[in-house]
Amino acid sequence: MASHTFTFRVRYAETDQMGTFYNARALEWFEVARSELSRSLGVPYTEWEKQGFFLPLVEAHANYKGTARYDDLLEMTVTSSVAGHVRLRFEYVIRHAAEPKKLVATGYTVHPVVDAQMRPMRIPDWIRTQLGGPEAEKAAEKNMDGTAQAE
Amino acid sequence: MASHTFTFRVRYAETDQMGTFYNARALEWFEVARSELSRSLGVPYTEWEKQGFFLPLVEAHANYKGTARYDDLLEMTVTSSVAGHVRLRFEYVIRHAAEPKKLVATGYTVHPVVDAQMRPMRIPDWIRTQLGGPEAEKAAEKNMDGTAQAE
Amino acid sequence: MASHTFTFRVRYAETDQMGTFYNARALEWFEVARSELSRSLGVPYTEWEKQGFFLPLVEAHANYKGTARYDDLLEMTVTSSVAGHVRLRFEYVIRHAAEPKKLVATGYTVHPVVDAQMRPMRIPDWIRTQLGGPEAEKAAEKNMDGTAQAE
Amino acid sequence: MASHTFTFRVRYAETDQMGTFYNARALEWFEVARSELSRSLGVPYTEWEKQGFFLPLVEAHANYKGTARYDDLLEMTVTSSVAGHVRLRFEYVIRHAAEPKKLVATGYTVHPVVDAQMRPMRIPDWIRTQLGGPEAEKAAEKNMDGTAQAE
Repeated sequence: MASHTFTFRVRYAETDQMGTFYNARALEWFEVARSELSRSLGVPYTEWEKQGFFLPLVEAHANYKGTARYDDLLEMTVTSSVAGHVRLRFEYVIRHAAEPKKLVATGYTVHPVVDAQMRPMRIPDWIRTQLGGPEAEKAAEKNMDGTAQAE
Repeated sequence: MASHTFTFRVRYAETDQMGTFYNARALEWFEVARSELSRSLGVPYTEWEKQGFFLPLVEAHANYKGTARYDDLLEMTVTSSVAGHVRLRFEYVIRHAAEPKKLVATGYTVHPVVDAQMRPMRIPDWIRTQLGGPEAEKAAEKNMDGTAQAE
Repeated sequence: MASHTFTFRVRYAETDQMGTFYNARALEWFEVARSELSRSLGVPYTEWEKQGFFLPLVEAHANYKGTARYDDLLEMTVTSSVAGHVRLRFEYVIRHAAEPKKLVATGYTVHPVVDAQMRPMRIPDWIRTQLGGPEAEKAAEKNMDGTAQAE
Repeated sequence: MASHTFTFRVRYAETDQMGTFYNARALEWFEVARSELSRSLGVPYTEWEKQGFFLPLVEAHANYKGTARYDDLLEMTVTSSVAGHVRLRFEYVIRHAAEPKKLVATGYTVHPVVDAQMRPMRIPDWIRTQLGGPEAEKAAEKNMDGTAQAE
């Protein structure tokens, strides 16, 4: 597991007539979180795409837990994990940055690693190590020893 | 259960640099589907809000099953159901309108019925009947007879 | 000049906390109008791109004249003209579809015709004829006769 | 005149299939700039709305000067001025943050100051002083002396 926390503000464009943020914006913020996580780990996602690895989304889930209004400062924590040989999973928690850090939304997304022709690829070890953290590193080592891993 | 099917086209604004529609747009399309379903049933959602009933979203889920590009004609089917006393559930299936109607995405959303102050309300019978279909109608009748309903 | 009129509804996602549509949505609707205009003329914009012609935007202008709310049915009229050898201009008028058709917004956009490498191209005659209408057709004929055209 | 400069990154959600940012995003970035300018001047726009002053948009213009891709770091400079008694004008310049700071887009927006019922209001002196800078301050003083100002 790798993890990253950052803050951002709700834009006026992201509100709707109910006065809170529009629900689909959560998925846009999840994507910002993936960008910031990969940058924080030293290999921004732009670099992934240059090296021929793409991360389309196959599953997204959001739970809306509280309201957030225009210009509110929010705190996002994103955590990555490796799900078997070919999939990455990211979990998201969005809170108000101000104490008592009331919960706004949580969610997760699931992504295969594919090439430019959208063909699924085995997750390369550098991604496994970068996003999967210590356990993934061990698993990657084992794997290089020829030990099979159940998906 | 009530159900409605309609077609729409992918806008240029809804694509991203991968060339397919951006993932969060699915949640926007789900919302269009709820609008069209309520209109098809004779009471558009604008009328709900005028009568003091709001449908915030507490849970959203999307599975991405295929690609869809700018200007593709898609076919959305939305189906509503009543989940206990206070929640509505909508299920969505998006396909290409052209044969063989390849699947693009599926998903569901869950909504409590609340008043303007965001306090949960018991689902009024006209909504239960409208969105829940024949079984819900029966349930609503029973309910009026004083029969308890498990949530 | 070529012209096309169609109707569309304001989506919930397009509102903001002021209760009317968010200003940037006008530019998205302008783009929908260009798509619908090209389709109405028999060569959808997807076909343009397949043939190697792209229409990036170099200038956009919007005047906001009235409000429009969620689910309001709006009527868009888009009119194209050819501006010299290399640029197309589109003008937009958005009104409420219901009488007395109150004005919502007007605007225009300017687009060079470019190839896939974003190099400006002389507007091909079929586009000049399609979007510029009868006068453009005459101009295109003259042009084939070797008559110079001032930009 | 008041002015503010800040940086931001292009989100994946803001790209389109041409690979650069989608044109309407410029207007969303303009709005982020107004928020950041008002915050930098000590009275965030949320405070304006609480005090009963709203800034709808009546005119928006954008010139697209160059491309910007996903994750590019951009630098926005926004400058405000007071246009007569009832309107504010903001000008925007977006460049790449990296040298040689290539131009991406420029634009302007025009806003009346209105109350919650959307009725135009004379710009209050604190706004005139905050957004109009030294000359506006002088003008505001004169104005309090009873000197007329041409709109």
